Amino acid sequence: MNNLEFKEQRAMDFIAIGRLCIDLNANEINRPMEETMTFTKYLGGSPANIAVAMSRLGMKTGFIGRVADDQMGRYIVDYLKKSDIDTSNVITDKSGSVTGLAFTEIKSPTDCSILMYRDNVADLKLEPTDVNEEYIKNAKAILISGTALAKSPSREAVFLALDYARKHGTVVFFDIDYRPYTWKSVEETSIYYNLAAEKCDVIIGTREEFDMMEMLTMKGNKDDHVTAQKWFDFNAKIVVIKHGKEGSIAYTKEGEEVVGAVFPVTPLKTFGAGDSYAGAFIYGLMQGWDIGKAMEFGAGSAAIVVSSHSCSDAMPTAEKIQEFIDNYQK
Amino acid sequence: MNNLEFKEQRAMDFIAIGRLCIDLNANEINRPMEETMTFTKYLGGSPANIAVAMSRLGMKTGFIGRVADDQMGRYIVDYLKKSDIDTSNVITDKSGSVTGLAFTEIKSPTDCSILMYRDNVADLKLEPTDVNEEYIKNAKAILISGTALAKSPSREAVFLALDYARKHGTVVFFDIDYRPYTWKSVEETSIYYNLAAEKCDVIIGTREEFDMMEMLTMKGNKDDHVTAQKWFDFNAKIVVIKHGKEGSIAYTKEGEEVVGAVFPVTPLKTFGAGDSYAGAFIYGLMQGWDIGKAMEFGAGSAAIVVSSHSCSDAMPTAEKIQEFIDNYQK
Amino acid sequence: MNNLEFKEQRAMDFIAIGRLCIDLNANEINRPMEETMTFTKYLGGSPANIAVAMSRLGMKTGFIGRVADDQMGRYIVDYLKKSDIDTSNVITDKSGSVTGLAFTEIKSPTDCSILMYRDNVADLKLEPTDVNEEYIKNAKAILISGTALAKSPSREAVFLALDYARKHGTVVFFDIDYRPYTWKSVEETSIYYNLAAEKCDVIIGTREEFDMMEMLTMKGNKDDHVTAQKWFDFNAKIVVIKHGKEGSIAYTKEGEEVVGAVFPVTPLKTFGAGDSYAGAFIYGLMQGWDIGKAMEFGAGSAAIVVSSHSCSDAMPTAEKIQEFIDNYQK
Amino acid sequence: MNNLEFKEQRAMDFIAIGRLCIDLNANEINRPMEETMTFTKYLGGSPANIAVAMSRLGMKTGFIGRVADDQMGRYIVDYLKKSDIDTSNVITDKSGSVTGLAFTEIKSPTDCSILMYRDNVADLKLEPTDVNEEYIKNAKAILISGTALAKSPSREAVFLALDYARKHGTVVFFDIDYRPYTWKSVEETSIYYNLAAEKCDVIIGTREEFDMMEMLTMKGNKDDHVTAQKWFDFNAKIVVIKHGKEGSIAYTKEGEEVVGAVFPVTPLKTFGAGDSYAGAFIYGLMQGWDIGKAMEFGAGSAAIVVSSHSCSDAMPTAEKIQEFIDNYQK
Repeated sequence: MNNLEFKEQRAMDFIAIGRLCIDLNANEINRPMEETMTFTKYLGGSPANIAVAMSRLGMKTGFIGRVADDQMGRYIVDYLKKSDIDTSNVITDKSGSVTGLAFTEIKSPTDCSILMYRDNVADLKLEPTDVNEEYIKNAKAILISGTALAKSPSREAVFLALDYARKHGTVVFFDIDYRPYTWKSVEETSIYYNLAAEKCDVIIGTREEFDMMEMLTMKGNKDDHVTAQKWFDFNAKIVVIKHGKEGSIAYTKEGEEVVGAVFPVTPLKTFGAGDSYAGAFIYGLMQGWDIGKAMEFGAGSAAIVVSSHSCSDAMPTAEKIQEFIDNYQK
Repeated sequence: MNNLEFKEQRAMDFIAIGRLCIDLNANEINRPMEETMTFTKYLGGSPANIAVAMSRLGMKTGFIGRVADDQMGRYIVDYLKKSDIDTSNVITDKSGSVTGLAFTEIKSPTDCSILMYRDNVADLKLEPTDVNEEYIKNAKAILISGTALAKSPSREAVFLALDYARKHGTVVFFDIDYRPYTWKSVEETSIYYNLAAEKCDVIIGTREEFDMMEMLTMKGNKDDHVTAQKWFDFNAKIVVIKHGKEGSIAYTKEGEEVVGAVFPVTPLKTFGAGDSYAGAFIYGLMQGWDIGKAMEFGAGSAAIVVSSHSCSDAMPTAEKIQEFIDNYQK
Repeated sequence: MNNLEFKEQRAMDFIAIGRLCIDLNANEINRPMEETMTFTKYLGGSPANIAVAMSRLGMKTGFIGRVADDQMGRYIVDYLKKSDIDTSNVITDKSGSVTGLAFTEIKSPTDCSILMYRDNVADLKLEPTDVNEEYIKNAKAILISGTALAKSPSREAVFLALDYARKHGTVVFFDIDYRPYTWKSVEETSIYYNLAAEKCDVIIGTREEFDMMEMLTMKGNKDDHVTAQKWFDFNAKIVVIKHGKEGSIAYTKEGEEVVGAVFPVTPLKTFGAGDSYAGAFIYGLMQGWDIGKAMEFGAGSAAIVVSSHSCSDAMPTAEKIQEFIDNYQK
Repeated sequence: MNNLEFKEQRAMDFIAIGRLCIDLNANEINRPMEETMTFTKYLGGSPANIAVAMSRLGMKTGFIGRVADDQMGRYIVDYLKKSDIDTSNVITDKSGSVTGLAFTEIKSPTDCSILMYRDNVADLKLEPTDVNEEYIKNAKAILISGTALAKSPSREAVFLALDYARKHGTVVFFDIDYRPYTWKSVEETSIYYNLAAEKCDVIIGTREEFDMMEMLTMKGNKDDHVTAQKWFDFNAKIVVIKHGKEGSIAYTKEGEEVVGAVFPVTPLKTFGAGDSYAGAFIYGLMQGWDIGKAMEFGAGSAAIVVSSHSCSDAMPTAEKIQEFIDNYQK
């Protein structure tokens, strides 16, 4: 049991909002991208990956976003549909935008980087008027991803979605997902992340991401407890702070402190760890599990995904995660 | 007595943040601007006018803003200094911006309009890093004006100022001051006005301005009481809704409802009514007056200013306002 | 007699293309603008002033340009009409642009400067499709002003007008009129000025303006003769190089070199000298006068205008210029 | 023999200027791109392909351009070096630009399309100051590609390169290469293409491309002879008009008319036909061949490239082209 309340009678379990893009993963790996000759195409973007994770875990999942009016955009919508994700609120942008791209470079399992194409991308063209109040009203939970705050009008669309969610008691998960692309300055980032976090029930981020959020008003703080406490004065009920390989710690409004399990594995690459963690963790919370069990499920899912070539394609079922955890513990 | 608490030991009474610009008032009036041949230059901009009003009423006043690096910008700083307003936090913008202009057209005392120059203006170049936490910490109250939310980076600077004010118990006045220039859409406007209003102690606007703020989440509401109530769930203590000539109504968190006095006069023009009202009303509240008396003082000041050619230059002293009210009542 | 051939049967004598804006001239002069309190409004912009000059000299004159959809734009069109200038090709821009402004500062008769408002101005919104081939085909001459090359789409509109003029044998006057506003770099300026100058019959500029044009391909040249010669390899027939108070020198394709007359006067300000010179000089050439006489007429007109408060309003008639010259010589 | 004169003593044979980008060619072909899962990376961009063609044909070749400061940019420079192309005038752009991408879709050998990424691309950041007069002075010929005219500052850099080439007698080839991306309007395109073409010795384009160039001043003309004639009044010596499968026709200033050979083949795709044609045709002209023989060489090269998966990688040697022609004729 945990401290979140989901409106059980609602038709939709989970809606993600924000970035839908394409990963182009290097096929020849363990070398600089200059030497990579072929790339494989996958659905990408943190909220897209989390939506796929949730759907694969059996949750009734939807998406609010914009895709480009081209082959890449059509591929994305097809992939969502094949993944049993409702696309009734995925809009084809007609402004001449393109699909965001992420070329992955895997120099070694621990030295991974991304070459981003984020100019004029469709996902950041999401308009406030694209956000349907009824859709959010009929869902148990929504997830917002920080990247969607990086630019207008997507930024305003997210704030409106937050308003609708608070108005209707839809639980809000905030995956900080900070990436410097598109933002004009780190001060700008910090200001909007804080405004958004004030309206969320569950906030998930790395210590470095919380440092960025605190740079203007709590500069120098490194105390996770102080970090979490700030948000309980607003609407937060759970704050999760991730410390890489050392694992995560969750704080609750009621004063609990839960240290998450870790499953060290030899990864193929680092990409996808956060998204798979978030998906399985949220799934656990929505099952009513206690926080520690949900965190363990998240860690198990992450361990599976970092061992695979893709992110979205590799999202595991609940059975597979449980099996991994059971086998690992032996 | 009213329900606001000001930190009495602080050195600065009042800081305004935002727009500093130039009014170019038609000298030949009661005709279309096409036929006006000469214009007189004044300091303009709603928060600038309110700052002048406050200083003329004897309050120790400061300003946070940016001015252009040209003759108009230098004139503004000179005028603020001559008006005994602290300019230590008024920054000269070096990016090649210009000073905002407002050419006033007075076709008749009740048919007034403004021709705005708002492209590349210095006031909207205010950066978050321009906002000095100590300056706000040392002030009893700050005023933010909605126009400063119209564009980045000024928008973020205002949100940061709000954060500092809440952190340090500086009372926040929000003069909605909605003007469609610069904003991309009315939805965008509504979203940021709401985010700002959540953090303010006193919110002052016309019924039309509150309608705009409610267009997405409370569409169609015309009930002032419902409007005010929303903000008391956040940080507001007083909400003032203005109904033009019919006067204003103030609501308090404690449930009071105060109808403000009106002083019908034959105006020269309509400009400046809101700024002079806001200045004298805030002054009254900062004297600890009860809300009705502060509203009466605001209405008296407005009646004086609409009878004059300028806004900033015409801001009256407390004696002059009191004299007007005393004489009017006879 | 001179070396230009005008198609005498054409209905329109002269068309100017480009900038239409507003001058706001300081009424209190011989001081910095900070201390100027009132400004008087006039039609401004180099090609606008030259068009007024030509019309006042009795030439059938038209204009190709865009004005803002506001009081300033309507004033401009009214003023052109009152000055007997055909406005059938002056288009009201509906994109939300503003009218360019020039606030003049007269610190002393020889220390004059201008504060420009050139962001989002209507005149630079002129589109190629605004340029009417028939209109140019029916005119004896057109004048292009360098400022109209500063930005797209006005830049392309000018190049198209040049193409039409060459196609139909309309004589092209190029008033270099270089102002650094709007241009991104001096290299960009130089490149487009050269492309335009290649297509002109008469090129008029200061030594400094020709230096700017030569900065990339003839860097360091100070020899007027070399400067002029370059253009005779393209379409030029006359090149006039102005040396301020020392007067002007004109070169012809046929090898003539004509030193222009000067009329030293005590000016009120320096503004308007170039435009009035250009207007009267072009008028003289279109009368078939020899180049020296046309230059003298230009110099006489300039001497009259620098002694007046405005530019456009002060443009003299032919009688007045002749009278000035006759009296001066005595 | 042909009518072009190359300065034989110069060290460099040929310099291309403009676009350097990446082709991502679908590996699974004969289907829509939505169904393509993997892509292979190649150097792309019309002038880049022509430079590779020229170098493979044994010409001493250089390039003037900008590449992004990322893995794609470094790959491009490496590929040019490996192709024996001088990169001393290829600049790494530090503005945060990206490498242009072209995803190719091959639905069938004759139904091919391209999905372009052209926002914020490095190649269009080429500055006039990047263009080295000495470099052009020391080359026999340069090639400009129309795409480089699509946007500032690359547009101005090309005009400056044209000025330097004319000043020093470097022969200028103009590959029209019209692609609607980036251009604001077809009128804008037409205007700059004409300004550039005026300064070129050899102009190569399709009938459709010449129609676009003539849309404003010669609307409706379909007569190749009239089209070619216009440019002989400027600097052109040869104009080649391509009519797809029907072959090409070349006109010379001296009045010749040469119909080019065609080599019908069953293509894999249509991409690369124009670039390989241009490379081999220019090579032939630079060998002093008569125009018909050079056109035949171009057609042979094109036939080879359309039968291969890539463009740049597939550029043939002179031996291979000759062998193809010899075998074809049998």
